[in-house]
Amino acid sequence: MFTAIVRADTLQATLDSIGVLVDECKIHLTEDGLEIRAVDPANVGMVDLALATDAFESYEADGGLIGVNLVRLQDIAGMASGDDLVHLDLDEETRKLHISIDGLEYTLALIDPESIREEPDLPDLDLSATIVIEGRDIDRAVTAADMVSDHIELGIEENDELFYVAAEGDTDDVHLELGQDDLIDLTVGPASSLFSLDYLQDMNKAIPKGTEVTMELGEEFPVKLHFDFAEGDGTVTYMLAPRIQNN
Amino acid sequence: MFTAIVRADTLQATLDSIGVLVDECKIHLTEDGLEIRAVDPANVGMVDLALATDAFESYEADGGLIGVNLVRLQDIAGMASGDDLVHLDLDEETRKLHISIDGLEYTLALIDPESIREEPDLPDLDLSATIVIEGRDIDRAVTAADMVSDHIELGIEENDELFYVAAEGDTDDVHLELGQDDLIDLTVGPASSLFSLDYLQDMNKAIPKGTEVTMELGEEFPVKLHFDFAEGDGTVTYMLAPRIQNN
Amino acid sequence: MFTAIVRADTLQATLDSIGVLVDECKIHLTEDGLEIRAVDPANVGMVDLALATDAFESYEADGGLIGVNLVRLQDIAGMASGDDLVHLDLDEETRKLHISIDGLEYTLALIDPESIREEPDLPDLDLSATIVIEGRDIDRAVTAADMVSDHIELGIEENDELFYVAAEGDTDDVHLELGQDDLIDLTVGPASSLFSLDYLQDMNKAIPKGTEVTMELGEEFPVKLHFDFAEGDGTVTYMLAPRIQNN
Repeated sequence: MFTAIVRADTLQATLDSIGVLVDECKIHLTEDGLEIRAVDPANVGMVDLALATDAFESYEADGGLIGVNLVRLQDIAGMASGDDLVHLDLDEETRKLHISIDGLEYTLALIDPESIREEPDLPDLDLSATIVIEGRDIDRAVTAADMVSDHIELGIEENDELFYVAAEGDTDDVHLELGQDDLIDLTVGPASSLFSLDYLQDMNKAIPKGTEVTMELGEEFPVKLHFDFAEGDGTVTYMLAPRIQNN
Repeated sequence: MFTAIVRADTLQATLDSIGVLVDECKIHLTEDGLEIRAVDPANVGMVDLALATDAFESYEADGGLIGVNLVRLQDIAGMASGDDLVHLDLDEETRKLHISIDGLEYTLALIDPESIREEPDLPDLDLSATIVIEGRDIDRAVTAADMVSDHIELGIEENDELFYVAAEGDTDDVHLELGQDDLIDLTVGPASSLFSLDYLQDMNKAIPKGTEVTMELGEEFPVKLHFDFAEGDGTVTYMLAPRIQNN
Repeated sequence: MFTAIVRADTLQATLDSIGVLVDECKIHLTEDGLEIRAVDPANVGMVDLALATDAFESYEADGGLIGVNLVRLQDIAGMASGDDLVHLDLDEETRKLHISIDGLEYTLALIDPESIREEPDLPDLDLSATIVIEGRDIDRAVTAADMVSDHIELGIEENDELFYVAAEGDTDDVHLELGQDDLIDLTVGPASSLFSLDYLQDMNKAIPKGTEVTMELGEEFPVKLHFDFAEGDGTVTYMLAPRIQNN
């Protein structure tokens, strides 16, 4: 059983956060809210999202699992304005999701969850550095790096207590250094890893510019990016595997 | 003889209403204003437009007929701002239309009306149901239906006194029901017809979102869509032939 | 030696004015400011730009010459908002330009000036007519002319004291006449020349709509277009060679 009412912008933020990595996903309809974990086809980028019941106008579920076509669901949610209410109702017999927006009813055929790529286990990593940064600074770094390269290095200069972003192209370079004063918070530790810009750009698309993002970094380890949405009732954690540095 | 001055937005609305169906049209320059009737190449969608002399700043005509390239004329009108005045002058000898916008003069070669597809006779249909609806609700219905199908069903549920829109896709469905309270007015009667979404989307493009549209429906009959523009001095009637329902 | 700080919008206007004609250019770093001259590959359009030291927040240079990839530099400048300050520093040893915008550092490899097309000498022409016109009127004329032709005639009707723009297409014509009252200033003289619209459109892109442009015209002679930017501390002169009229 699943029936819920949610603001369109909350639903859109949920779907967009997953949709930058995958086209289909499984959604756990738990008593505490929605839970989604997904990994991209190349096993490089992962996402772990939770949307608590407090993010909903009303919510009732008893632990089911559904598979959805995200692109289709994003199109439907995209028809609503931000503060429109979206009604979601699962018909367990027909395995269809009824979506209703201001009188408009959309019946979405669900996908057999068995046919969707298995959900990843997000490894519990002990990452030595933590950077709390505004979404718009991630955007600037990623956009600038993309002008010169398809890789980006994220790291810490421990002596100067700086977080840095670096991208090296064939002729041009991009470098950004942010200290304690430029960041919301910074916990230094040995950290330096190289990442694919493609993935980071996709994740960047889903990160609101004004949002506080907690980034965890290590030495040639994955990066974790964590942020809240829906006034704190939604949480997203991205994890991106590093590329091997060829120094 | 034809010489007239008209606001750019009035001219643009006129041309756009016809331009969604055809690229060329005949314009009757009557003493009472402009009259245009056209049918698309497949004989499925028709339009009947009248723009009364009151819609013009000044207007003089004595019953001529001209053929115009709508795309070209839309481009020219599109150069003006909404409240710019557009001067139109027909040179009967050269068969050219002089269009002047704030000092800029455009000389448009006319098309021989004989070479343009014959104007349709709009059949006088006795349609049993009348729905008066906002343009934005037509837009919502058409946009949603397009996500799942290339046909759309419009009809009346007589018992519940509802106007409904339905589209059935291979896996997903869209349904919209609007009652007396959701509509500006509703006169029920037996009505249910299937239409091609392509045509309805084209017509929808020309219907202002805030406009009141009168829709007339029957049982497997054409739909008529009627709306005013230019503060009531312009009227547009679209007629769209039904598709055969395969139930 | 070259080190300077400049508002992003001033830098963007500088680069855009040159970038509509060429992809690479030489920049003279004189004591009085930046100087750039360039000609397009077909030798038809030329630009002469100067940006005085007063346009900068700070400026120090001693007469060097650098070659830059304009497209790359436009991309970098485009990352900044209008009133952001852009720091420019030339590393003479590595021949790289360090560009810093709010903490983001971009290292741009310079191009050997010898490898860039030679700078043109702008001929000192004695043009008989001078038209001072708003940028938006040039935009209107060029946009309308483009609907019917790929050439545009600019000239003076001496008897009526009018500046005219004319374009003749296969079927349609465009004509614009502007008198003393429609222009900021007009000095008549024998003038009539035909130009390629492509080039004039490119130049038009770089001319702000609200800017006062001084146009100098002659009989089958090049046209000169002159305007200021950066509150008068920057000046741009375009020169466009005429096409041969086939009357």
